[in-house]
Formats: sequence, C-alpha cells, structure tokens
Amino acid sequence: MIKKIEHIGIAVKDLAQAEALYTRLLGCGPYKQERVDSENVITSFFDVGQKIELLASTCEDGVIARYIEKRGEGIHHIAFDVDDIEAEMERLKAEGFVLLNDSPKRGADNKLVCFVHPKTTNGVLLELCMDIKPIPVEISMAGEG
Amino acid sequence: MIKKIEHIGIAVKDLAQAEALYTRLLGCGPYKQERVDSENVITSFFDVGQKIELLASTCEDGVIARYIEKRGEGIHHIAFDVDDIEAEMERLKAEGFVLLNDSPKRGADNKLVCFVHPKTTNGVLLELCMDIKPIPVEISMAGEG
Repeated sequence: MIKKIEHIGIAVKDLAQAEALYTRLLGCGPYKQERVDSENVITSFFDVGQKIELLASTCEDGVIARYIEKRGEGIHHIAFDVDDIEAEMERLKAEGFVLLNDSPKRGADNKLVCFVHPKTTNGVLLELCMDIKPIPVEISMAGEG
Repeated sequence: MIKKIEHIGIAVKDLAQAEALYTRLLGCGPYKQERVDSENVITSFFDVGQKIELLASTCEDGVIARYIEKRGEGIHHIAFDVDDIEAEMERLKAEGFVLLNDSPKRGADNKLVCFVHPKTTNGVLLELCMDIKPIPVEISMAGEG
C-alpha cells in the first residue's frame, strides 16, 4: 500500500549551487549528502516535513546528466513510501503499470526502491521506496555447539 | 516560513483518464474536483497524507494546455504551505527569487497562492499557499445605535 509522499527528487547540474539556493529558499540547510554509485548520482537531502532530494550526476553520461540534457533542471520524480515494496510492485504490474526494475534495488537513504515508467503514469516518474529493515543478529556463545 | 509540502501539481490532458489512472495507482479515489476559472483549469485532488492535484486545462490556450504542448504531461509544480504568505513573498524577493505575482491571488482549495519563477529555482515551479482565514462577522442588534 502507498502510505505517503516520501520525497521529491529534483535534478540539478551543480549540487553546491543548488544546496545554497534551496537553503535560502527553504530556510534550512541540507541534513546529509549521499552518493549512490550504482546510479552515478550524488544526493543532498532537506527536511521540510517531507524530504526534498537534490540529485546531481557524478559522470557525464549518468542518468541525471542525460535527463538534464533532454529536459533541463527541474522536478525529476516523486517517491512514495510503501509498506511492502514487492507486494506493491506486483499490484501495480497487475494494474498495467510498467516497472523499470524487475526487483527492488538499493537506493539512497537506506531504502529499497523501484521506479514506475512515466509513460504509464501521465508523464510522472514515480519511485516506490521502503526502509531496509535491519537483519536480526543471531548471537552465539563462543565454544558452543 | 515554509512549513511543509502542501501538494504536488500534475499537468494532465484528460482529467477523467488521469483520475481513473491515479485511483488505480494510489489505491484511493479523488476527494474533490474544483474549477479555477481565473487559471482556466479544472483540478482533482487525492489525499495520500499530502495532496496530489491533477490539473487539466479548460480551454485550448490555457496555461496547462500550453505547458503540456511544450513539455508533455507530468509534474507541474510543488506547493509549500506557509504561515504568512505576504511575509514569505517579501523574504523570497529579498533573497533574489523572482515571483510571478505581485500580490497573493486566489487558488484552488480555499488558498491564497503565489508562484515563484522556475528560472530562479533550478527549473522548479514553486507555489506558496496559505489557507484563507474566515473573516470575523460583526453582529449588530437591529435598532441599535
């Protein structure tokens, strides 16, 4: 089930310039930066109740660099928080939405994510995201067994 | 002060088609439609914690029709809830942001709104919005004075 808007992703050319600008705009600074090497992006997060995620490319032909070349800077995606990403992926596939991943992949901010193709959502790139739960640690006593 | 994301506006060609699609996507239907004749738009609102506002043009050369012709359907703007729209407009002007209105104007959903030009916000069309407060009614006794 979709629970809420988790963040809005904004594609920018120059992360330092955009961080300074959004700090003036929102009246608060970013609370963290994070690289996602698998996507060739560096992200910066602001918290205004929900998160604003600035996204800059770390290489010339990265997905964000290509997006900006085609569309210019601007709003790149909306991310929805879901309680069970695999169930939600199945539900959306059955409803006819086209997913960009066959299985959830690792995103920024300790999330499993999956994107939905904008051609099936009136031009909106959607991200489903779910917190990665910590794996329970089994404690065994040395010398036991 | 910017308090939170109030809604995300999505420009669509066909409101009925988009309402049906977002109902399947979000797992809940729209809670209201509203025309804003001054903007030549008809809007449809969904509530997923924050609001999703679908925007369709009511005439061929309306602002949303022109947007879609140029950019295609998709995310049109982010709206932030502010506690004092005139103070926030002054603050943003002083910070160098370019506002698209000189004074707040009436928007959908009982709001006063003002837009910030995307050329000053890394390509993001921003809306400031504030609830219109009811005007206190003075009760006078007939025959008094």
